[in-house]
Amino acid sequence: MPEHVKVARGLAGVSITETRIGKSDEDGTLVYRGYPIRELTDKASFEETAFLITKGRLPTRSELEEFNASMTAEMAVPPKALDVMKDLGKEAHPIDALRTACSALGSIDRTRSASEQQASIEAKMSVLAANCHRIPRGERPRLPREGLGFAASLLHMLTDKEATAYESWVFERALILYMEHDLNASSFTVRVVASTLADPYAAVSAGLASLKGPLHGGANEAAMDMLLRVRNPEEVPSYIDEALREGRKVIGFGHRVYKKFDPRALILKDYLREILRRRGDDDVLYRLCDAMEGEMMRRKGIPANLDFYAAPVFYLLGVEIPLYTPIFAASRVFGWMAHYDEQVAENKLIRPDATYVGPTDLVYVPVEKRQGA
Amino acid sequence: MPEHVKVARGLAGVSITETRIGKSDEDGTLVYRGYPIRELTDKASFEETAFLITKGRLPTRSELEEFNASMTAEMAVPPKALDVMKDLGKEAHPIDALRTACSALGSIDRTRSASEQQASIEAKMSVLAANCHRIPRGERPRLPREGLGFAASLLHMLTDKEATAYESWVFERALILYMEHDLNASSFTVRVVASTLADPYAAVSAGLASLKGPLHGGANEAAMDMLLRVRNPEEVPSYIDEALREGRKVIGFGHRVYKKFDPRALILKDYLREILRRRGDDDVLYRLCDAMEGEMMRRKGIPANLDFYAAPVFYLLGVEIPLYTPIFAASRVFGWMAHYDEQVAENKLIRPDATYVGPTDLVYVPVEKRQGA
Repeated sequence: MPEHVKVARGLAGVSITETRIGKSDEDGTLVYRGYPIRELTDKASFEETAFLITKGRLPTRSELEEFNASMTAEMAVPPKALDVMKDLGKEAHPIDALRTACSALGSIDRTRSASEQQASIEAKMSVLAANCHRIPRGERPRLPREGLGFAASLLHMLTDKEATAYESWVFERALILYMEHDLNASSFTVRVVASTLADPYAAVSAGLASLKGPLHGGANEAAMDMLLRVRNPEEVPSYIDEALREGRKVIGFGHRVYKKFDPRALILKDYLREILRRRGDDDVLYRLCDAMEGEMMRRKGIPANLDFYAAPVFYLLGVEIPLYTPIFAASRVFGWMAHYDEQVAENKLIRPDATYVGPTDLVYVPVEKRQGA
Repeated sequence: MPEHVKVARGLAGVSITETRIGKSDEDGTLVYRGYPIRELTDKASFEETAFLITKGRLPTRSELEEFNASMTAEMAVPPKALDVMKDLGKEAHPIDALRTACSALGSIDRTRSASEQQASIEAKMSVLAANCHRIPRGERPRLPREGLGFAASLLHMLTDKEATAYESWVFERALILYMEHDLNASSFTVRVVASTLADPYAAVSAGLASLKGPLHGGANEAAMDMLLRVRNPEEVPSYIDEALREGRKVIGFGHRVYKKFDPRALILKDYLREILRRRGDDDVLYRLCDAMEGEMMRRKGIPANLDFYAAPVFYLLGVEIPLYTPIFAASRVFGWMAHYDEQVAENKLIRPDATYVGPTDLVYVPVEKRQGA
């Protein structure tokens, strides 16, 4: 018989499992499979990090070559999955289209093993993410370009432009930062579904479902919309004033885990400044972000999070705003699949209790004798 | 700051929230919104129970009429959602097709309010469930028949046959029994997604994703396959012997909550016998189930669950086996939406912790210097 315990709503601070995938901590620590995040953003490629997250250690050269070749091959998306996105029509929300296409792939690809399905969806998600806004609107799909790495290829599909080597490298850093974040809502959703022993596509469809929620996905998009509205660093104090007075949430601030600073935001903030410096551009976007961050810290003690600094980076790289959350998915899918494997390896169905607080002995009264509320 | 606690994997026995929707208990209690389950299976209609579960109390006559009219109107499924199912092709697993169609509806129906979306998916799920095996195979959709209640209309779509009033009534009881079961894996998945404030379609898509897993959905189908393999009540002892010796799971037995008996199985077992008696049929199917139940209780002390007795009931009613889990979904969606509302009404993002047990200070080594595992 299990023990009976009650825990905090939202499971805040409640450890439900051991993990070897990653660790994020109040003090601003972030570790992927044993590596402090800066080791990876400073030195590793996206592909190496994806191998690390999904398989538990960095690859040898031959393993990395095999991983890259398999990923390139798996990027071929069956036309049926694209047809399904097209059927949705031009009003489709990109994340709805992405979820529906991924769900459809699960039906099309069902005879393969779980690990083959994982390799498939990890690769295809980038292609679907780049196209989930285009295809429902009737535009032609943009396909991966041969000879580019994962990040450069995705950026090219997203923007149809040549990026500089530095900007492509920064985009790769942003993808690395989005890859894994222990039991965030979508990874936890993936684990709940995996615990029923559903296939990887089903689990990923569910992960995408939770990305639809504004408390999990969409924050990088909303942050950019906000930055474009505020525009001028000098407007920041009055904008924050008004938002706080009206009880509106300032997007891109605060995190369930990080209370002092989000290490991912610090890393991207430096890249944001460096992109502008290398371009020789006016640094108004950097100053706007910095002013907002400073004001929120002074007024509320709440630090900027990853989404707040990913947004202006994606913007400078020329990515359309509705694609920011799909980018999140294209990277996080590797984390999701690591959680899928870890859940299934030592599985126990995730099925909590609830405490019933209603009556238990009501008597049915036929409708003709029933009183209204 | 939240407290830091560790709980059992799978959250067994861990109460994560209060609820007023339903209560299931070790001792075989099952209550929906205050009514012991037999009050409802003995006396209530599916529609009354659906109103009760989603709105918290039984409807007055005018409320019930309005609810029925709205449900009938909402059963019209946009052709695009059917196109999406057809695109999947004849190999599609029914639950994959159902999840994909539901996900697509979320994209098509996105401008409506959450409560309109809920009414929409509650009604449409029955039509999609009845057609999720037909449409991918290129067969024509079967649409709801006017003038029939929810259960009779669904049964007609499923079988294309006239059922007797009694059999239709029994099917309605089975649907009532599938409607709600507190934090089962799919309802919990729905709550996790709802906690991100994603829309109802996203949440239901995720619920369907977890129904794909054999530890949650599919058990009624697997139970029927097993019953058809065993066939003869006299073969039961040797079948169970072999299964236990080989460590195979006997489908349709055991439940995370019910340890002595599953009240839903008891109710359906009586109906199974009564259907056979009224038909004047040989009662071999009843005796087979009864023998299996007796043998499992004697050998392992594990009671039969809902799926074990729903399977032969659906079989006698002429429903194809791959539709048994879609039927579960057509009823459970009302429970899911009740959990969606309860979650959102007093929301807190569901985001547990994990305890990281790996290293934290590894140093990146360039690939050319790396050793294999």
